[in-house]
This record gives sequence, C-alpha cells and structure tokens, in this order.
Amino acid sequence: MDAVAELISSAGQRLGPRAVITDRSEIEPWVTDWRGRLHGAARAMLAPASTDEVVEIVRLAAEHRVALVPQGGNTGMVAGATPPPDGSAVLLSMRRMNRIRSISADNRLAIAEAGVVLATLHDAAHEMGMRFPLTLGSRGSCTIGGLTSTNAGGTQVLKFGTMRSLVAGLEAVLPDGSVHDGLSGLKKDNRGYSLDQLLIGAEGTLGVITAVALRLVPDIARRAVAWAGVESAQRALELLRFLQARTDTVEGFELVPQDSLQLVLKHIPGTRAPLAGEHRWHALIEATTASPGTDIDAELQALLAAALQQGIIGDAVIAANEAQAESFWKLRDTISEAERAEGQTLAHDISVAVADMPDFIVDASEQVERAFPGTIASGFGHLGDGNIHFHVRAGAHAAPDWYEREGAEITRFVDDLVLAAGGSISAEHGIGQLKLGEFARLAPPARVHALRAIKHALDPLGIMNPGKLVP
Amino acid sequence: MDAVAELISSAGQRLGPRAVITDRSEIEPWVTDWRGRLHGAARAMLAPASTDEVVEIVRLAAEHRVALVPQGGNTGMVAGATPPPDGSAVLLSMRRMNRIRSISADNRLAIAEAGVVLATLHDAAHEMGMRFPLTLGSRGSCTIGGLTSTNAGGTQVLKFGTMRSLVAGLEAVLPDGSVHDGLSGLKKDNRGYSLDQLLIGAEGTLGVITAVALRLVPDIARRAVAWAGVESAQRALELLRFLQARTDTVEGFELVPQDSLQLVLKHIPGTRAPLAGEHRWHALIEATTASPGTDIDAELQALLAAALQQGIIGDAVIAANEAQAESFWKLRDTISEAERAEGQTLAHDISVAVADMPDFIVDASEQVERAFPGTIASGFGHLGDGNIHFHVRAGAHAAPDWYEREGAEITRFVDDLVLAAGGSISAEHGIGQLKLGEFARLAPPARVHALRAIKHALDPLGIMNPGKLVP
Repeated sequence: MDAVAELISSAGQRLGPRAVITDRSEIEPWVTDWRGRLHGAARAMLAPASTDEVVEIVRLAAEHRVALVPQGGNTGMVAGATPPPDGSAVLLSMRRMNRIRSISADNRLAIAEAGVVLATLHDAAHEMGMRFPLTLGSRGSCTIGGLTSTNAGGTQVLKFGTMRSLVAGLEAVLPDGSVHDGLSGLKKDNRGYSLDQLLIGAEGTLGVITAVALRLVPDIARRAVAWAGVESAQRALELLRFLQARTDTVEGFELVPQDSLQLVLKHIPGTRAPLAGEHRWHALIEATTASPGTDIDAELQALLAAALQQGIIGDAVIAANEAQAESFWKLRDTISEAERAEGQTLAHDISVAVADMPDFIVDASEQVERAFPGTIASGFGHLGDGNIHFHVRAGAHAAPDWYEREGAEITRFVDDLVLAAGGSISAEHGIGQLKLGEFARLAPPARVHALRAIKHALDPLGIMNPGKLVP
Repeated sequence: MDAVAELISSAGQRLGPRAVITDRSEIEPWVTDWRGRLHGAARAMLAPASTDEVVEIVRLAAEHRVALVPQGGNTGMVAGATPPPDGSAVLLSMRRMNRIRSISADNRLAIAEAGVVLATLHDAAHEMGMRFPLTLGSRGSCTIGGLTSTNAGGTQVLKFGTMRSLVAGLEAVLPDGSVHDGLSGLKKDNRGYSLDQLLIGAEGTLGVITAVALRLVPDIARRAVAWAGVESAQRALELLRFLQARTDTVEGFELVPQDSLQLVLKHIPGTRAPLAGEHRWHALIEATTASPGTDIDAELQALLAAALQQGIIGDAVIAANEAQAESFWKLRDTISEAERAEGQTLAHDISVAVADMPDFIVDASEQVERAFPGTIASGFGHLGDGNIHFHVRAGAHAAPDWYEREGAEITRFVDDLVLAAGGSISAEHGIGQLKLGEFARLAPPARVHALRAIKHALDPLGIMNPGKLVP
C-alpha cells in the first residue's frame, strides 16, 4: 500500500465512514477550480465534523507524509484549493464543520466554524439585529474558513476592511497537530507573535482554520444607492473624497467605465442605463446607516447635488427603491459575465495606491492596447480600495486560442506595469497556484526567503497545501 | 578584541561618529527600563539616521554575532528595550530616524520613521485637519517604532483599535539585512504571509522597524466628556452598550472604582469629585465627532438622561468646557500616581472578554484580598476593550519589602485567575522581559514551540533582541 492508501485506511478506522469519502463521483466536483482552469485529482476527500477530527487527520497526514488540501466552498479565483493532478494529496473538505458556535449582539461577535457559508452567517446576524459586513458574489457558497484563509475582500472593504479587519481571532490545527485557540475574542492580547494574523491569508499552507471569531456591526437600518456619471476616473476619485470628507456613511464605491456598462446593457437581459446622457465613467455609490432616524437618501442626494454644482460629476440619480438599488448593483455585478459573452477575457485582480489608481487605469490601458494591437483593456471595481479588476479583452478579430497563446505574455506585461506603479499583482484573490509563477518572478528574493523560512518553520514536513502561495 | 568591541569598531568606520555613541554618560539614561525595574548595560548605543544605516548595523551584528536591542522612547512597561546586564548586546536607538516622510489628508496616510515621537505625529496630522487617533500617557516621548513593535493600545482603542488596526504597512530591516518594504499603503495586498502583521507586536525580535505607514482619520471637530456614577461594573458595561447601540461617537470609556477616585482626590492636588453623591463605580465617557454641525454635547446629554431614567446610571455630568473635560481625564490619568503616593502597588495589565470583565473584577478582587490578607485589589481602565489595569495595593500594614517578598506570588495568583477566565496576562503592555517568566509558565507548549520556530526561522543567529517576548 502506498502512503495515500495507508492514510485513507487509517482515517477510515479512526474517523467513521462519513468523514472519509472515496467515491469518485462525490469527489469529482471538487477537484477542479472555480474558474475551471486547473483539474486536479484526489483519491479521497476527508470531511471532518469537528476540530478533534481535524487534529486526527493532520496527525495521520504527518505520519504518512501525505499532503492535505483544505477546501471550503471551492469558490477561490486562483486554484488555491485545487489538489495536484498526480493524486499525491487528499482533499480536506471543511464543509461539514458548519456550526455557528455562538453569536452575540452584546459582544458583537460570532464564532463560526470554517464550513459555515457566508450567507448563513449573514442571516444569523440579521436575525439579531446585527450584521457581518463583508460580502461578495459567491456569498451563497463560499465559507468562513476560505474567506479567512484568503483574506477575502469584496464590495464593503471601503468602510469595514478585508477579512483581516473583521477576524477577532481564530482556531486552527497547526501542522504538528496542536490546536491554536485564538477564539476568546480578546480585543487586546499581546502574548507573542500573532498566529491569528499569520494564518489569515495563508491559504491553508500553515495550518487548517477550523473556526473563526468574527466582528459584527449593527444592522443596516437604511441604505441609499446612487449612480453618478463622471468624465474621468480622476473625477470619480474626487467624488469619493468629496463624500468621505462630509459623511462616514459611504461603504461601497465602485467604478464602472462606459465600455463595461455598454457590454452589460448589450448582453445582460433586463438591464438599462441609470442615466439618460453619455458619460465616460460611472460610479456606483452605496451609503448606509444603522440609525433609523437618519434620512440617508436625503443626505446622499444633497451631497451629490453639491458635487454636481462643483462640477465633480456630470449627473447622478438615487435609486428610488430597493428594486432599483438592486438593478444598479446588477450593472456592476454582471460586468464579468457580459465580457465573457462578448468574447475571450483575461482578468487581473490588482491594486495600487488609491491616489494613483485613476492614472494607472488610463495609462495601463493605453500601454496594453498599444503593445497588443486589437485588445481592449479596462479597469472596474473597488476604486476606494485602490483595487480594480483590470481586464483585457481579445477583441473581435482574435483567434479562438488567443487566451492560451497570448494570455501569459499579456499578464506579464500587466504585472510589470503594476509593479512599476508600486502595486500588488494580487489584491484580494490571493496567489494560490494560478499566480504562483508571476509571484515568484516578481517578488524580492529576500521576501521569498522569509516566506519559505516561515513555511518550513511551521510545516517542516510540507503537508499543508504544498505548491500554493509560497514560491 | 571581543565581538562587541569589533562591532563598535566596524560601525565607527562605516557609519560616522554621530551614529556610534560610546560615552557612558550618554548611554546611561537608556539602559534602565521606564519603571526602573531592570538595569542593563551596553558599551555602545548605535543611532542610525537612515534605513541604509540600519541595514549596515544589522549586517555587522550578524557578522560579529552581537545582539541588538532596538529602542524608541524607552517608555515600555515590560523592559522590552532594556539590554541585558552582562554587556553582551548593544543598544540600537531609533530616535535619530525622526522624519515624517510624507503625510496626506487625501490619502489619509502618514509615513513616519520609527523615531518620530507620537505627539509630533499628532501635531503634524492636526495641522492638515486630520488626526492619528491612538494616544496614551507617554505621547510626548514614545515613538512610532516602539508603539508598533509593542502593538500599543491606549484610551482610544474602543473605536479605532490598537496599533495593529492603524498600521497600513511598514518598512523593516530583517535579521538577514534585507529590507522589507511594506510602505506602499496598499489597502489590499494578498502576496503571501503578512510580514507587516508579524512584526507588529514582535518587540524587535524579528527585525528592526524603520518606518510605518499610518492611517489617519478626520480631525475632531467637537468632543463631549462626561462622568457617570454607577452602582456596579456591570452597570457601567450596560451603559457602554446602551450608548453604543445608539451612537458611534463614543471613543473612550474608562471605568474608575470609587476606591481609586478617593485616592486621587486624596493625593493629587487640585482634583475634585465630578458628582455630588457617592457612587461605587464611575465611568468616564468621551464622545467625538468630525462633523462641526453635530451637537455632540446635546447628543450625549440626551443619551445619559435616558440611561438615568432607565436606572442604568445613578447620576452623570457633562464637562461644561475643555478645562473641565481635562479635569475629568486627570482623575483617570493620575490613578497610578495616587496609588504610588498611598503605598506599594503591584500592577497587572490584563484582559478578558468584555462581557466577562465586570464579574472578573469583582471576583478576582475578592479572591486576591482573601488569599493575601491586608491587600486591596481593584481594577480600572478600558472596560470597553475588556482590558483593565488590575492593581493590588500593599495596604497600611505591609512591610517595606512587601513588593519584593510577595509580589511574584500575588502576580502568579492573579495570572492564574486571568487564565482561568480565558483572558490574557498581557493586554497592551507586551511581554518583554518582565512578563517572560509568567508567559513561559502559562503558555501552551505548542504555542511556545510555534513562536520559537518563527523566531529561529527569521533570526537564526539570534541577534534581534534576544531574551524578550519568546520564552
């Protein structure tokens, strides 16, 4: 028997049948990444129901020197939860650990196991008048463990930060089988290096996150959603700063170029432009308040009127009701889908300093289109976080294998521009496998050395999600 | 020549005379810790003026295997910046690196070198209508590097968090002489483990922080300071939650027991009780707003009136002007001084979950006073952070050497109670040298193992502040 078979056999004896899945048809949906780029293989999917079972699994993995690939909802964008194709690793599905262990409005804290789906947590918080503010497209299937392990972002980062800001502590099984218990929710604790912070964004390479203490905020009492037309990305940033200097209610601010809006209107049924005139750029603004007495619509309306008067924006409209607010968000949320309908698209999740972003979008788009004639480049998304999704479309005359033939070269070109601008080639999606080559190419050697040293220090046997994150 | 002499000689050749101080009288003020507990020795104090000079020093330290003890304002509470008494280490004073490299209201970011004094940063931010919200008693001498290396807290943590929440990135020289540059201020960056987060609170054991990118917030337009009398610590917590459910303006909430107030009134000249009646506990509340149009006094007044009506508080008064506001704060800030005037005091900076704190204070005080007859125990401070300063006073009949004879045993007793309550024996002061024994005694072995592994991975030669933080 080889090591994997031995692991499966031992796990079967110790964990009971529900925790050890070897049926190929049950495993198959989970060995390909969300975007369908990488196809892995695993002879078993271990599905522990408790932290104790995770400890058992990690010990067995160490004993048999078999790599574990932790996985939540498998909605990641960089194949960080996809096993290697050679079958040398087993999947560690955290989805059965799906209890909300506690939730308290008084303490503004929820303790959720790794497999709790984000939408489930949203609902539980909402039921007690509270809110877990981080949200993103895959909220119906992504899990707390995965969100934490990837330091996920989303559309509410502007006000509430990424997962790193919202995690009050976590429980994890370290590669030596010990349990790190950081769930006490202490607001102040200076006992040595923060293992919590080290595990956030570590993509499962330093241990398995089993539960997370999460900060809650008061629920939204009222929200206002607006759409503004501006003449440049720079004007959009001016609008954001104009608003932020006058109110702290703005929690979403998304940039949409005219080109993207037009693709949405063309390909997504039931969409229509919020404004009558033509604008080169658009901003989607969401303001919320936890105070029922605040007329958030009127506040945002007045601020946008003042911005119009000062020439910052060309026009704006406030959603008259929830349905219209949702329709505005749909215009933003379906950009990627509309691009795919139009043709081949190469996506880059990148960040630069907020102040540099307007120029970066314009300059980088021009340079890409010049270097790769026929392509169309544009950036949309979280302007207030200095994070946009910089997409390069193939254009009408591209070959069917454009993505495979030119993709890597274009990505290198884009990444070089990002690096030259002092930015990051991975803003919110992580490194996983898909960005590992570019990270290795561009990271300073001393940084790579430090990451490897930390990885080796905590996981000397290399059993925790090898081949991900660390070049 | 021994290794230290060789290091001093090499540093003298490469760095110029101002960066190498060997005059004993200049070094002497810096080799004893702030509280005067530990007396160290150093044959040289290296004082680099730039990151390049720090790189040079770290390389020399590695070459000669001489330990460096980084130091900012030397205001720490746990002797984390005090060299060992055997003269085997040299001091690395960061105070000459005192430039604010950049500060921008638009970006809400300041980049300050490690030696910038906190009050200097406060002033610089204030001049442009912004604010760096973290503040504490030693603001006139503590430095940004020290605050970051100790993950400092203070009185504004309730709303703005500790340094960990306020650091947007940092620059540090790692033990191998490489420079980690995290100053870009990217709001989203998922390129591998967060070295920034690892260095925050690492007390200089993993590298030398040379500069820090710090988040700014809009300046205070108006503030309201109130003093409330309550019948129990539990009521004080109820008051905090009552306020927090209705406003997000509360940024300071300090608990003061009657016993502490009476000591202040007795020993600190010019103090008087804010309220006429007797109350067993008191809460000092600070609310602020960045919006000049908000009548923060009226808001807080109305909320306190409602709390009074609901029986949460017994009485309350709002400071009529800035002078009175300062006088309220003085009552809080001079508690330690008043205690010292009264007699010997043993201080513990501890935290438990916020919800557990009222009961903890009462129970732990009772248990300490029962186990050590004659002592008087009480807790005061940051109730909203679950962090109090739990002080045990010797009492009138204690021997002059009470502190030396009984201190360690009482501290062990207190720390055991904290651990049993799921709390931390170091909330905001760190471990340094003074808490290292207790940390070693109480930390789970697996945690100690993980901390040591990380330390050894990044500092295999053990040149960065050995004997601190890591048991």
